[in-house]
Amino acid sequence: MQGGAVKELFNVLTPRDAFERLESYLRGPRDTERVPVEQSLRRVLAEEIRSPHELPSFRRSTMDGYAVRAVDTFGASEGLPAYLTIVGEVLMGQAPTVSPTMAETVAIATGGALPDGADAVVMIEHTQEIDRSTIEVFRSVAPGEHVIQVGEDVHVGEMLLERGHILRSQDVGGLMAVGITDVLVATRLRVGIISGGDEIVAPDRQPGPGQIRDINSYTLASMVERAGHVPVRLGVVPDVYERLAQAARSGVEQADVLILSAGSSVSTRDMTAQVIASLGAPGVLVHGVSLKPGKPTILAMIGDTPVFGLPGNPVSCMVTFDLFVAPTLHRLSGGRGLPPRQSITARLTRNVASASGREDYFQVRVEQRPDGAWAEPVFGKSNLIYTLVKSDGMVRIDLDKNGLTEGEWVQVILF
Amino acid sequence: MQGGAVKELFNVLTPRDAFERLESYLRGPRDTERVPVEQSLRRVLAEEIRSPHELPSFRRSTMDGYAVRAVDTFGASEGLPAYLTIVGEVLMGQAPTVSPTMAETVAIATGGALPDGADAVVMIEHTQEIDRSTIEVFRSVAPGEHVIQVGEDVHVGEMLLERGHILRSQDVGGLMAVGITDVLVATRLRVGIISGGDEIVAPDRQPGPGQIRDINSYTLASMVERAGHVPVRLGVVPDVYERLAQAARSGVEQADVLILSAGSSVSTRDMTAQVIASLGAPGVLVHGVSLKPGKPTILAMIGDTPVFGLPGNPVSCMVTFDLFVAPTLHRLSGGRGLPPRQSITARLTRNVASASGREDYFQVRVEQRPDGAWAEPVFGKSNLIYTLVKSDGMVRIDLDKNGLTEGEWVQVILF
Repeated sequence: MQGGAVKELFNVLTPRDAFERLESYLRGPRDTERVPVEQSLRRVLAEEIRSPHELPSFRRSTMDGYAVRAVDTFGASEGLPAYLTIVGEVLMGQAPTVSPTMAETVAIATGGALPDGADAVVMIEHTQEIDRSTIEVFRSVAPGEHVIQVGEDVHVGEMLLERGHILRSQDVGGLMAVGITDVLVATRLRVGIISGGDEIVAPDRQPGPGQIRDINSYTLASMVERAGHVPVRLGVVPDVYERLAQAARSGVEQADVLILSAGSSVSTRDMTAQVIASLGAPGVLVHGVSLKPGKPTILAMIGDTPVFGLPGNPVSCMVTFDLFVAPTLHRLSGGRGLPPRQSITARLTRNVASASGREDYFQVRVEQRPDGAWAEPVFGKSNLIYTLVKSDGMVRIDLDKNGLTEGEWVQVILF
Repeated sequence: MQGGAVKELFNVLTPRDAFERLESYLRGPRDTERVPVEQSLRRVLAEEIRSPHELPSFRRSTMDGYAVRAVDTFGASEGLPAYLTIVGEVLMGQAPTVSPTMAETVAIATGGALPDGADAVVMIEHTQEIDRSTIEVFRSVAPGEHVIQVGEDVHVGEMLLERGHILRSQDVGGLMAVGITDVLVATRLRVGIISGGDEIVAPDRQPGPGQIRDINSYTLASMVERAGHVPVRLGVVPDVYERLAQAARSGVEQADVLILSAGSSVSTRDMTAQVIASLGAPGVLVHGVSLKPGKPTILAMIGDTPVFGLPGNPVSCMVTFDLFVAPTLHRLSGGRGLPPRQSITARLTRNVASASGREDYFQVRVEQRPDGAWAEPVFGKSNLIYTLVKSDGMVRIDLDKNGLTEGEWVQVILF
């Protein structure tokens, strides 16, 4: 036993090295589809978008007031106002019908099109109407003042959004602004999920003696959904080699990515590893990661399909999904960097120890106190699902650290 | 003009006071529906959930090894091992068929049901098989060691999730673990969106002279969707009082919440205010907030329906949605506190000035540098949509501050 444990220890990779070994096989996006911009929120852009025209396409006023030739206002003050003749009004959504010449002005509202001849706008607050056709101007304006120039928002041909960008609400608005109403995005990935274990029954069944309900395939399906992809639950498979192998082969055929949530015992984890190794080339890339919880994680490629063997307990399962599966889905969708992850900073309520040379994760509850956010560690056996339910997030202790100290600022990755 | 401006200044409320005035009218959830737990991610729970039974319902091993009576291992060491007789094996998913008595043991895997008589598990690493029916034990275990007790995860009747909780992936798993397969949640809200403005045309049309494409109703619809609700775009309405009033009356009838995205000029904003005031009681609660951008915001209640008049420029529109509409949707769904919002902390790259007595928001781009995250202000006229597209988030300057200083840690609310 001692020899085996030592061998395993020497073979494990850091989480970063482990993911990089898998990452070299990942190219994205796999498939693309064209969708209406209205339905593109959170999708990954599969084309670069350049502006088809200038925005705005005409000079616009940013204030309610009067369009003027700036030169006509030079030197104007409360004591010595400039007198301008109102020669018309710009109507919203229409081209100006009149152009001011020397000492003339045109009434204009915010967003109105600046008439030819005018080069600035005087705010209505800095004017006084003398009669229907004359105003006094109390301040001078510089050429271009209170005006958005043609192309000031974006120029024709300007890069608006890069390939791999995840579309947000303001991107939807920005695309509409330049008349782009559909975009090419990465197709959502189908992620197959197999739960292994003789003791697992479906949640709607009454477990018999020694049996428990399936947790992981539902937690995983929900995490796949949260990542913007399509979970395909492929059922609970008993710890029988040929049954598991058959389910896995079928999973590789029908899904873009396959997750096997292994049983909890060492022998069923070994069976999962053997099944994955049997599926094809290039095969198992990583077996064991210097990570707690989550050490017995398996990362594999079968043809073009990433296959994950995740540990059976719920906490390990969530940690390893976040570390390995979520970045894989992101990369296969053509996304760059790491997938977006909600997190907050908080101070730790107490010391937490850790073994150096291993990346540790522990659960915390976040408390808002008058002096800011505090992260209170929630300890519990990692087999307990309600340790997770009662937590708000998790905190990482880096490989090279022996722990974290009370009062230290930490990043809480919110669940 | 001066008198009017001063009056407006005295009447404005702080963003917090403004929302509290509206909040007193908000009760949630409005409607509820029962959904399968598998489809409940991000929904707001409308019932409290207590555990229907103990979890686990039987004592489980947390290790691969041997179930023992702890007393039989007391004093065991490498030099003086305890000798135990293997009387059977616990099969996964089955009730134990044999109970160890004095100096007897039963093989067990992680997750297996502890047999009667046993009260602890010895890890396989601390044993040696002498022959098929005898092991040496090198370490003593305490009663309860490596065992999860009945109800250790949750007790029968224990509060699992409170009303108003937003369901996460691990909650989905946790509910399945205790056999709860459907839950009562708040029904998604229908949010009507009306865009006002003579100059606005649909994005798929070529704007004529002086016209621009509709941005806000799409940005807003997308923010409603991001908040987990159902946007209902009610079209673009010209700046004609009776047309806008008719659209607003129809909106109040068909939607749970109504947003009017006003035109940009003062006169059309005034028209929006008059239209909202005409819709019914209790009417306009707030008109003007000490906020930049977003000062001319209107908050109203027409019967049970919150109605918002949001400023026409895209930046104001996003800021005021976040400050007023998103918390309203959250409260109407029965959620407590503030709606979850993605944010990160970063250091500011330069000084930013602000007027005291007003809450200011400015856009930033976030840069990851070797020494951490830095927030670089992105300045631009707030009429420009691409100021938003090129930013990652916004930073708030509190009412009582005159600005922020270079190097200061700030909270970046990510878009």
